[in-house]
Amino acid sequence: AATHNITVLPGDGIGPEITKVALKALTAAGKAEGEDFVYTEAPIGGAAIDATGDPYPASTEEVCKAADAVLLACIGGYKWDSLPNAQRPEKGLLRLRSSLNAFANLRPAVVLPQLADASTLKREVVEGVDILIVRELVGGIYFGEPRGFKEENGERVGYNTMVYRESEVERIARVAFDAAMKRGKRLCSVEKSNVLEVSQLWKDVVIRVAQDYPEVELSHMYIDNAAMQLIRNPKYFDVVVTGNIFGDILSDEASMLTGSLGMLPSASISEPGKPGIYEPVHGSAPDIAGQDKANPLAMVLSAAMMCRYGLNLPKVADRLEAAVTAALDAGYRTGDIMQPGCKQPRPSAGRHPSGSP
Amino acid sequence: AATHNITVLPGDGIGPEITKVALKALTAAGKAEGEDFVYTEAPIGGAAIDATGDPYPASTEEVCKAADAVLLACIGGYKWDSLPNAQRPEKGLLRLRSSLNAFANLRPAVVLPQLADASTLKREVVEGVDILIVRELVGGIYFGEPRGFKEENGERVGYNTMVYRESEVERIARVAFDAAMKRGKRLCSVEKSNVLEVSQLWKDVVIRVAQDYPEVELSHMYIDNAAMQLIRNPKYFDVVVTGNIFGDILSDEASMLTGSLGMLPSASISEPGKPGIYEPVHGSAPDIAGQDKANPLAMVLSAAMMCRYGLNLPKVADRLEAAVTAALDAGYRTGDIMQPGCKQPRPSAGRHPSGSP
Ligand SMILES: CC(C)[C@H](C(=O)O)[C@@H](O)C(=O)O
Ligand SMILES: CC(C)[C@H](C(=O)O)[C@@H](O)C(=O)O
Repeated sequence: AATHNITVLPGDGIGPEITKVALKALTAAGKAEGEDFVYTEAPIGGAAIDATGDPYPASTEEVCKAADAVLLACIGGYKWDSLPNAQRPEKGLLRLRSSLNAFANLRPAVVLPQLADASTLKREVVEGVDILIVRELVGGIYFGEPRGFKEENGERVGYNTMVYRESEVERIARVAFDAAMKRGKRLCSVEKSNVLEVSQLWKDVVIRVAQDYPEVELSHMYIDNAAMQLIRNPKYFDVVVTGNIFGDILSDEASMLTGSLGMLPSASISEPGKPGIYEPVHGSAPDIAGQDKANPLAMVLSAAMMCRYGLNLPKVADRLEAAVTAALDAGYRTGDIMQPGCKQPRPSAGRHPSGSP
Repeated sequence: AATHNITVLPGDGIGPEITKVALKALTAAGKAEGEDFVYTEAPIGGAAIDATGDPYPASTEEVCKAADAVLLACIGGYKWDSLPNAQRPEKGLLRLRSSLNAFANLRPAVVLPQLADASTLKREVVEGVDILIVRELVGGIYFGEPRGFKEENGERVGYNTMVYRESEVERIARVAFDAAMKRGKRLCSVEKSNVLEVSQLWKDVVIRVAQDYPEVELSHMYIDNAAMQLIRNPKYFDVVVTGNIFGDILSDEASMLTGSLGMLPSASISEPGKPGIYEPVHGSAPDIAGQDKANPLAMVLSAAMMCRYGLNLPKVADRLEAAVTAALDAGYRTGDIMQPGCKQPRPSAGRHPSGSP
């Protein structure tokens, strides 16, 4: 038995309410396995802007860096949408990722049999889909310099730089190959090397790293084709590795295969020994915040990813995942995944799946 | 009656065979309306590399610039895949677009009632979808400078620049607003302004141009969300305007709503009075080239777009589109869109729809 220090960032919108459910589930699952969790809450995003004027205050950075893992809900909302970019909630998220060097964003898109009809894609197309998208998270065009605005021939020009160095590609490629080895041993690297130099470098390095993983079947796909194949034949994919912006696009697209963003967790891992960030893929849904309508399952599954990848507590992870499955099997559904014949969770009896981990 | 000078670029793979069908249809449709087409063929892509060592030879550029419109089939193939980027077929395509300043790429994604079951998305989701994607085609990260490779701290670095200037955004925005005025009067501008400066500039300019189009309902969407909404609720979209790489990704994704790339035409238009480029969205499909299996309809529909947008011959365009509809209504299908109960076109009787424009 050990004590695990978790920094909890409830963020904005539905964040606080789904955090409550996830922590209840995590505490219970830990207790059953003799593991203790200590939670330190800190503000980020809009909540932090309101409290301190900064979407990622130094005090939050400090407790994140000191934690064993960071559990984040979601950030943002209409309220802060008109602020200049540098002061917006999103900037807090980007700075959090960067400050922890959380370079490998793992986004599973798994179609649960209970929800195979929830997708806009045909059941036979999505049934059995199990994709892991590995997105580079602290480089590429999100952070590339130079960036900004300039004046040229009397008009404004906006520019950003998409840049990758060999070591950045190599470390994310290794994460992806390692993940593929533990799964179906197929890896698809996605880039635009027929047009972009940065993608040619990406492809070269991935091919080099592949020599250390002879068992993994490596393929290469252009981003436009990948965006297409993900809908045409999603079962083709096992692990996908790609850069920051392409991963942003593909993982959101892939989320639709599952029918609900409310089900999808993610892990953003750093170097060994450093804390990772675990967060749902969905946003802060300000329109339904505070109404007890939000689906907490992505947050519970994010806590499970934290236990599995960040804390080496696979048994606690198993319990959390089993709790989610049990709630679904019992027919409980929030509005986003409601189907005929299913039931709304009863708030009075305690929100599932926290009741039974 | 007039004579129209068309530069025809059959390109590679299935290009020559679908070109033959499209020209036969175009000539017949023109004749019925008293319009004459004169075709000048020129090599591009792999065919041009084989003939001259250059994927876009000066002689091809010359006849393209001199034409009333350029009708292109498709380029590329395994054969040229290992050449360095600057000598590959794709580079010929990019240079063609740039040399004609074909800055506005119009890609309709229309779900034909006859093919509503061909998509991997549910019929009720795609039925009635009619989206026009307006993609900026000669700027952005495809052409931005600086670009290339450098050595830094003993390792290779690859980089590209995503850049837009006000005038570039303004002209593509105007094309999109004009198109929206002729359609459903809704325009969605797609960018990533919560992260990228180039996207903030994009958004600012689109908002400014919108003042000249008070009747058009303008919305803004981040590219990740757009990639998601395109599958979640495609009927939301009327006209979409976006930059070069985002448009590349979104238009390929949107093509899957229709069930077959073999059905999708595109137009790349330049300033008034300058020739545009009309081409199918699909690739050169080297695996089925020369077997009379390719679907020629996207190419026929590209010729129709040429007549409508480039030559101001709406009646010829109507005839070509009616011919496609007639062939589908008669139950003819190539392999890519084959459905139970439909028939293969009989080569002996002449490939439809060229028989009956
Ligand atoms: C909020 C935004 C900055 C962020 C991103 O683009 O990375 C989000 O879309 C995500 O994918 O986590
Ligand atoms: C072949 C390639 C360079 C091209 C592009 O990326 O523009 C293609 O994908 C397209 O969309 O026409």
